[in-house]
Amino acid sequence: MTTQTSDIRLQQLIDAEEIRRLIYDYAFHLDMNHPDELANLFVEDCEVIYGPNFGAEGIEAYKKTLEGIGEFFTATSHHVSNIVIDFVGEDEAHVRSVLYAFHRYTRDRPDSHVWGQYHDVIVRVDGQWRFKRRELRSDATKEFHVKQQIPLGRA
Amino acid sequence: MTTQTSDIRLQQLIDAEEIRRLIYDYAFHLDMNHPDELANLFVEDCEVIYGPNFGAEGIEAYKKTLEGIGEFFTATSHHVSNIVIDFVGEDEAHVRSVLYAFHRYTRDRPDSHVWGQYHDVIVRVDGQWRFKRRELRSDATKEFHVKQQIPLGRA
Amino acid sequence: MTTQTSDIRLQQLIDAEEIRRLIYDYAFHLDMNHPDELANLFVEDCEVIYGPNFGAEGIEAYKKTLEGIGEFFTATSHHVSNIVIDFVGEDEAHVRSVLYAFHRYTRDRPDSHVWGQYHDVIVRVDGQWRFKRRELRSDATKEFHVKQQIPLGRA
Repeated sequence: MTTQTSDIRLQQLIDAEEIRRLIYDYAFHLDMNHPDELANLFVEDCEVIYGPNFGAEGIEAYKKTLEGIGEFFTATSHHVSNIVIDFVGEDEAHVRSVLYAFHRYTRDRPDSHVWGQYHDVIVRVDGQWRFKRRELRSDATKEFHVKQQIPLGRA
Repeated sequence: MTTQTSDIRLQQLIDAEEIRRLIYDYAFHLDMNHPDELANLFVEDCEVIYGPNFGAEGIEAYKKTLEGIGEFFTATSHHVSNIVIDFVGEDEAHVRSVLYAFHRYTRDRPDSHVWGQYHDVIVRVDGQWRFKRRELRSDATKEFHVKQQIPLGRA
Repeated sequence: MTTQTSDIRLQQLIDAEEIRRLIYDYAFHLDMNHPDELANLFVEDCEVIYGPNFGAEGIEAYKKTLEGIGEFFTATSHHVSNIVIDFVGEDEAHVRSVLYAFHRYTRDRPDSHVWGQYHDVIVRVDGQWRFKRRELRSDATKEFHVKQQIPLGRA
């Protein structure tokens, strides 16, 4: 292959690593209860959709949804796998992944589980990949406190 | 390193990304109940082994095993991680991965769980990586409807 | 980019693949009950920390902790995802990952679950990446036989 082709393909592999890292950092900061670090992973005009009646438009609204996660849970664990990346130009990617999430509550209620998918639009701004749009679709839940989910759209 | 060595190593990294994507696409189409897209991930003379008495030889037999998954489950979620790829020549790879699968049934029976391993032979045909052989080995199950499993072979 | 820059970045991608493989091989040999292969993944002067009162310094002490896992469990399944790698020089990396582990016991007691994080120091010795330090931090457990855990340090 030509040096130019090699360079483009190498850059895309590096971008894929950085995009996966963004997704893992989201899970890490969520589980560590780091709301500021979490918000930093999103662009200013982000859109976050956790359910049909639960989400945020813009970073300030998103920060509000993060208030209280520290007291609500004693522990959460977000396991993200099956990451599939489609690049749309050099600085944008559409990304699909699979989530298994565990939650333990401060209040006396059973642990909950979520099996779902993330559908993300991830963009590069000032050299950093960040979430432009993050949508959680739910395959199934058990004892989860959020009652309404975006369905997977299973045929 | 020489340009030729670089090119070979770069190509193998790209192949590894494509092979992981194949494995994730399988999980996606299974969970989305897309039997046609699922069958397209296999070569004509594929071999699929889901249990000692459950599997298929050839794509037509495999398609038959997929009939009815739409009505049998209301939801499944396949989480695949720990993917280890050994290339055997340029167009074949032996691949091992770990599965955690969740199933919710249409019939009134408890959700089931499978903890297992996939052992795959994946080949490149007409520029596309596809499953030549897929074997599911089970570490443990809980409430699973398939009663007989291929064991891991734990020492 | 210059050929030299390309080569360095390509090498780091290859190193990342090898480091992930090390982590997956650990899970594999643990689940397959291969204590010798497991010990081979660590350097001589390794440090392993599974809990505040459970771990090992040096390979001989580590091998002792592996004695009996064959009879204690009938099955374990270690699912590792969210792997984030920070290189510290050419031959050392600090690596964070997320674990969901399932255990089924030989004794008549309920299956157990662990949701946690691995924090690793991984070094290249004689061309092979190996664990120099492995610490398991626990987010939450259910029915787990090890009673004391290193906490995540959730804020």
